[in-house]
Amino acid sequence: MPTVHIMNAYDQELKFLASRIASMGGLAERMVDESVKALVHHDPALARKVIADDVLLDEGQREIDDKAIVIIARRQPMADDLREIIGAIRISSDLERVGDLGKNIAKRVLSILETPQPVRLSRGLEALAQLALVQLKEVLDCYATSSVERIGTVRDRDDDIDAMYTSLFRELLTYMMEDPRNIAACTHLLFCAKNIERIGDHATNIAETVHYIITGVQMPLDRPKEDKSHRVVLSGE
Amino acid sequence: MPTVHIMNAYDQELKFLASRIASMGGLAERMVDESVKALVHHDPALARKVIADDVLLDEGQREIDDKAIVIIARRQPMADDLREIIGAIRISSDLERVGDLGKNIAKRVLSILETPQPVRLSRGLEALAQLALVQLKEVLDCYATSSVERIGTVRDRDDDIDAMYTSLFRELLTYMMEDPRNIAACTHLLFCAKNIERIGDHATNIAETVHYIITGVQMPLDRPKEDKSHRVVLSGE
Repeated sequence: MPTVHIMNAYDQELKFLASRIASMGGLAERMVDESVKALVHHDPALARKVIADDVLLDEGQREIDDKAIVIIARRQPMADDLREIIGAIRISSDLERVGDLGKNIAKRVLSILETPQPVRLSRGLEALAQLALVQLKEVLDCYATSSVERIGTVRDRDDDIDAMYTSLFRELLTYMMEDPRNIAACTHLLFCAKNIERIGDHATNIAETVHYIITGVQMPLDRPKEDKSHRVVLSGE
Repeated sequence: MPTVHIMNAYDQELKFLASRIASMGGLAERMVDESVKALVHHDPALARKVIADDVLLDEGQREIDDKAIVIIARRQPMADDLREIIGAIRISSDLERVGDLGKNIAKRVLSILETPQPVRLSRGLEALAQLALVQLKEVLDCYATSSVERIGTVRDRDDDIDAMYTSLFRELLTYMMEDPRNIAACTHLLFCAKNIERIGDHATNIAETVHYIITGVQMPLDRPKEDKSHRVVLSGE
């Protein structure tokens, strides 16, 4: 009987990590979504809310880190559980970074709203964010349901985000060249777009971690986490 | 006697992690240094070398991850050693990201070299990179020597990098406004500068991890890892 009791407490500890990851994931998604909504709807109050929320993710990450180490030290888990615990540490670190990126978008939104900006561009950013958020949602869903089947597809779809980002990058450069008054706002939009592209990279990292937790094997290194915007050369045409 | 033998093997495993981190750190520093040298000296071959080197850091990170999990599962370490092992996982992840950032700079250098660019700007980038590299070197030194005394100073000095980055950001925007032909190259330089600023953030992360390894306590959350460039509003003046 005591053994069963201990097992249950241990299971509960593991479940705590998973549910904390789920709540961090939900918050990170909301922050990114709201930061882009703040841009599209010219809503500085919403941007400020996103900036304030970020501390919750920092706390979440630290809580998971501390808890994970206590669980390992106390329970001395075997390989499967160990992968799950180390995986939780990794995923929470990715989610904390996603929150940072959302916060950075929100901060830039406050600057962008002080200058005129082409509406079409914030729409482009919104579409890019939707892609990244679907990606993040699916990968967190794979984590919550321990399903490895869709992981490869999710990871491969990061290419779509990269392609849309590179095209937005080109469009923003063109606007800057057309009218120097667009330069400051478009530069912030460029960085917002880059942040969203990086959120896609973090979703990819999480996909790889989930794959590792479930299968015990690292995914092959063939997926380069890189957009193609570094190739853009326009030299003022 | 067997106990002593086992202890030694275990110590050797821990030492392996530390020495692998040291070699990853050396490589990451070199990649960043060489990527900026490639820019300053117009050296596409050096940029391509940096791009090729990145896979070595990816392999290093995976090796440390795998090894760390094997050590935890086999040795069931107590809290101190556990922090060291989890710390190695975290630091190697930061170093892998530093390598990615160096590779991204190198890729942008290949595009930048195709267009004319103001020399002064690449010098500014070089100075920024030197600050970030000193930061990274010192924090890796703290890790190698387990010395916690300088950690706070190292972390605080990240402010200098942020300030220099923000000033470079402004300067680059001004160049873009002066002459639209500078826009594409300057945008790549902006992202290079941002990458270097992020390398400083990773050095800060590593400082926090080293502090945690040595003291068992997380550093206070009061250090915002943010530059101030998001506040720059120039609207074409």
